[in-house]
Amino acid sequence: MTSIGIFGWQGRMGRAIAQEIERVGETLAGGVDQGGDPVELAGRADVLVDFSSPSALAANLAAARGAGTPIVIGTTGLNDRHHAMIDEAAAEIAVLQTGNTSLGIALLSRLVRDAARRLGPDWDIEIVESHHRLKVDAPSGTALMLGDAAAEGMGTTLSDSGVIGRAGLVGARAGGTIGFASLRGGTIVGDHQVVFAGEGERIELGHRADDRALFARGAVRAGLWLASAPAGRYTMDAVLGV
Amino acid sequence: MTSIGIFGWQGRMGRAIAQEIERVGETLAGGVDQGGDPVELAGRADVLVDFSSPSALAANLAAARGAGTPIVIGTTGLNDRHHAMIDEAAAEIAVLQTGNTSLGIALLSRLVRDAARRLGPDWDIEIVESHHRLKVDAPSGTALMLGDAAAEGMGTTLSDSGVIGRAGLVGARAGGTIGFASLRGGTIVGDHQVVFAGEGERIELGHRADDRALFARGAVRAGLWLASAPAGRYTMDAVLGV
Amino acid sequence: MTSIGIFGWQGRMGRAIAQEIERVGETLAGGVDQGGDPVELAGRADVLVDFSSPSALAANLAAARGAGTPIVIGTTGLNDRHHAMIDEAAAEIAVLQTGNTSLGIALLSRLVRDAARRLGPDWDIEIVESHHRLKVDAPSGTALMLGDAAAEGMGTTLSDSGVIGRAGLVGARAGGTIGFASLRGGTIVGDHQVVFAGEGERIELGHRADDRALFARGAVRAGLWLASAPAGRYTMDAVLGV
Amino acid sequence: MTSIGIFGWQGRMGRAIAQEIERVGETLAGGVDQGGDPVELAGRADVLVDFSSPSALAANLAAARGAGTPIVIGTTGLNDRHHAMIDEAAAEIAVLQTGNTSLGIALLSRLVRDAARRLGPDWDIEIVESHHRLKVDAPSGTALMLGDAAAEGMGTTLSDSGVIGRAGLVGARAGGTIGFASLRGGTIVGDHQVVFAGEGERIELGHRADDRALFARGAVRAGLWLASAPAGRYTMDAVLGV
Repeated sequence: MTSIGIFGWQGRMGRAIAQEIERVGETLAGGVDQGGDPVELAGRADVLVDFSSPSALAANLAAARGAGTPIVIGTTGLNDRHHAMIDEAAAEIAVLQTGNTSLGIALLSRLVRDAARRLGPDWDIEIVESHHRLKVDAPSGTALMLGDAAAEGMGTTLSDSGVIGRAGLVGARAGGTIGFASLRGGTIVGDHQVVFAGEGERIELGHRADDRALFARGAVRAGLWLASAPAGRYTMDAVLGV
Repeated sequence: MTSIGIFGWQGRMGRAIAQEIERVGETLAGGVDQGGDPVELAGRADVLVDFSSPSALAANLAAARGAGTPIVIGTTGLNDRHHAMIDEAAAEIAVLQTGNTSLGIALLSRLVRDAARRLGPDWDIEIVESHHRLKVDAPSGTALMLGDAAAEGMGTTLSDSGVIGRAGLVGARAGGTIGFASLRGGTIVGDHQVVFAGEGERIELGHRADDRALFARGAVRAGLWLASAPAGRYTMDAVLGV
Repeated sequence: MTSIGIFGWQGRMGRAIAQEIERVGETLAGGVDQGGDPVELAGRADVLVDFSSPSALAANLAAARGAGTPIVIGTTGLNDRHHAMIDEAAAEIAVLQTGNTSLGIALLSRLVRDAARRLGPDWDIEIVESHHRLKVDAPSGTALMLGDAAAEGMGTTLSDSGVIGRAGLVGARAGGTIGFASLRGGTIVGDHQVVFAGEGERIELGHRADDRALFARGAVRAGLWLASAPAGRYTMDAVLGV
Repeated sequence: MTSIGIFGWQGRMGRAIAQEIERVGETLAGGVDQGGDPVELAGRADVLVDFSSPSALAANLAAARGAGTPIVIGTTGLNDRHHAMIDEAAAEIAVLQTGNTSLGIALLSRLVRDAARRLGPDWDIEIVESHHRLKVDAPSGTALMLGDAAAEGMGTTLSDSGVIGRAGLVGARAGGTIGFASLRGGTIVGDHQVVFAGEGERIELGHRADDRALFARGAVRAGLWLASAPAGRYTMDAVLGV
């Protein structure tokens, strides 16, 4: 049995992860929130899972490094400075950072990269996503992640090719771009679809998140995988064996 | 047999309509393009179909009124002045004006209006459409037509409720709005989907145009229906028997 | 506040309904299971909701009639004899019987009936549904309900037009039929789509159940509506104001 | 320029291929139908494309071998004996045999195999396809081809895992199976979707054939690729560079 500690455990994801640990029969090492002591928890756990906040990242990483404990980072809203901290920590311990802990999304990213590489520039790439009415940003971070995968497959970057939210007299579509469209409504957990539109045919690669619990499930699987990994920086691809 | 005259017959739609008239075994009265004589054609035809250009509308309507011949108007890009001309002509002759001659879209509009009325404000309405890479405007005129139907069902207007092309930190979705998203790529003829997103469930009402020929088919069916209609202004709803 | 009693309250739906009653701030009159006393509960409740079993229906209906209390029946697997009992009870009290308490499905049925009536015989109707891997029957009861609506719109019955599960050398599609296809996998709560396939165009009318809680929500809404209804037999259409 | 000869050139595909050869600016070496002389054509062409009939295969292959000319075989309805002939010919000349000349379908097969391999047995695989009302068999050959790819990814074969056309009391879904569902209606050219349904999430990998001309386009691309290939047996994968 693996003993898992949670940073941010009173948050929605933290609680879901605690339930999932129990469901799969592993051990909950405990949890820490803002004001708690990450060092003590890092010392007791086999692996840590962090869904707290960007401002807590430095202390959480320091605690993990101090104890030599691998850490999964699912906190969103990270900036370049945070990513540099993660790189630094990954020289000493195993760190898996991801904006989406779904294994399905990890696989979809891989397929999208592969398709974009094989199909070449005659196929136009568009990404459409749907989320619940409370989501404040568009497109979703996951849509951008899929866009990165497509751009990589095309041999470009998203900052050079992304087109977000067409409105008005936009003119004919420019070749080599990746378009994004966002729908918002109801309680939709999260649907993503990448469309490759060619001459007279289309390939549609999609993912539907039907139940929010899948993210906790993926986070725990990532933790179990990471617990025995050597130092280094990982993504969900590693958990899939990609 | 009904004898059908075409305004704008060397255009893509004009030629497709001529083929469809032949396919269904009706009579092609002839066609006129820019610089041709609409009066002579209007006198010979049982019904006219106009897919020319907004600038030709005044002369085409005058010819139809002079001859007392019903006219289907599929020309797009009409403004308020054009619509006033149509209303005036419709006092004397039968005029059917539409931005989309598909019978399927006419039915879908009806269903969308009905659904919006029945479901009420707890369901969020989003409209997503896909078209080929050469289309220059977004959203499509048909998507806006579906949005009008939804707004009417909600007891509002699209100008008060439409949200086009979300991008960036848009905040939580405002109640009572109708969102639009547009995808562009390849040779897609035209897909439209209206999503009603409620608490834990979604209704999705969509239309796929698989073959451009369907628009010529609908235009001819509209002409055959209109040939025997009394003076007045009509839409495709009338052809459906709605 | 309306006081709601539950028959079959230790079942999955019964417990979900109890939670929903609390969530919306109504009163739970109590619950009864196999071996319990329906008469006492029927006397205390303003309205009853029955998700027990066909074998309990006779006693539950008798209790409701004795107390003059309206009753929503969501139990599945009813046969002709059960329906006759319901008709008999509906002469004295308000009874709403349905195989699916989703308001979205009720609306979709209405739209499907309307579309089938308007489109006529040139459009082929196909119904495809997806459910979780544990579901034992195919097609789903809800798919058959949508098929009934389509058949009614076409002026026929499902027993004369239904084609279930094509396999092998089936030959060209017979006109006037309604095809059914079933997918099973994972934890899918329930998706249904009715496709109307015409010449070069398709209309797709669909419903996605994203969260099983929607059925409890619809059952409670049905109960609140039925509490003040006169004697008679109702369906979810009445709750929608159809 | 490459000179392409067509076996079965008065058939629907043959004529479409002749048009496509002209559209892309290559040379049509000529065509032969039943009763014609394949040997003469094989001697003049750089590459042959065969969309005739299984009964003509032996003569067509012999002509290609005699002249040392590569041949694309798109004829459907081949049996084991035909495949043995192809293997034999492929020892001497380049032969590409495929049941579907769409490049999109070739890519989709690859993605499906990869996804099935990575996701493992916890994800249920279902394949749904839609075709026009005149198609006589179900599921489509292309759906079975996608099923083969999925089975290969799972480490099994389709004959051990395929389940076609669920109907009635089928019981809970057996693990390790691949389900097939077929929709028929209107003029649908061909849609295929492979669904991987996991715990709380789904991956959907699909292809839409929007225009029948895509098959001629793929056949010509296959021919151009094959013209310079060494002896051997190939599939569309080779054209994609897979």
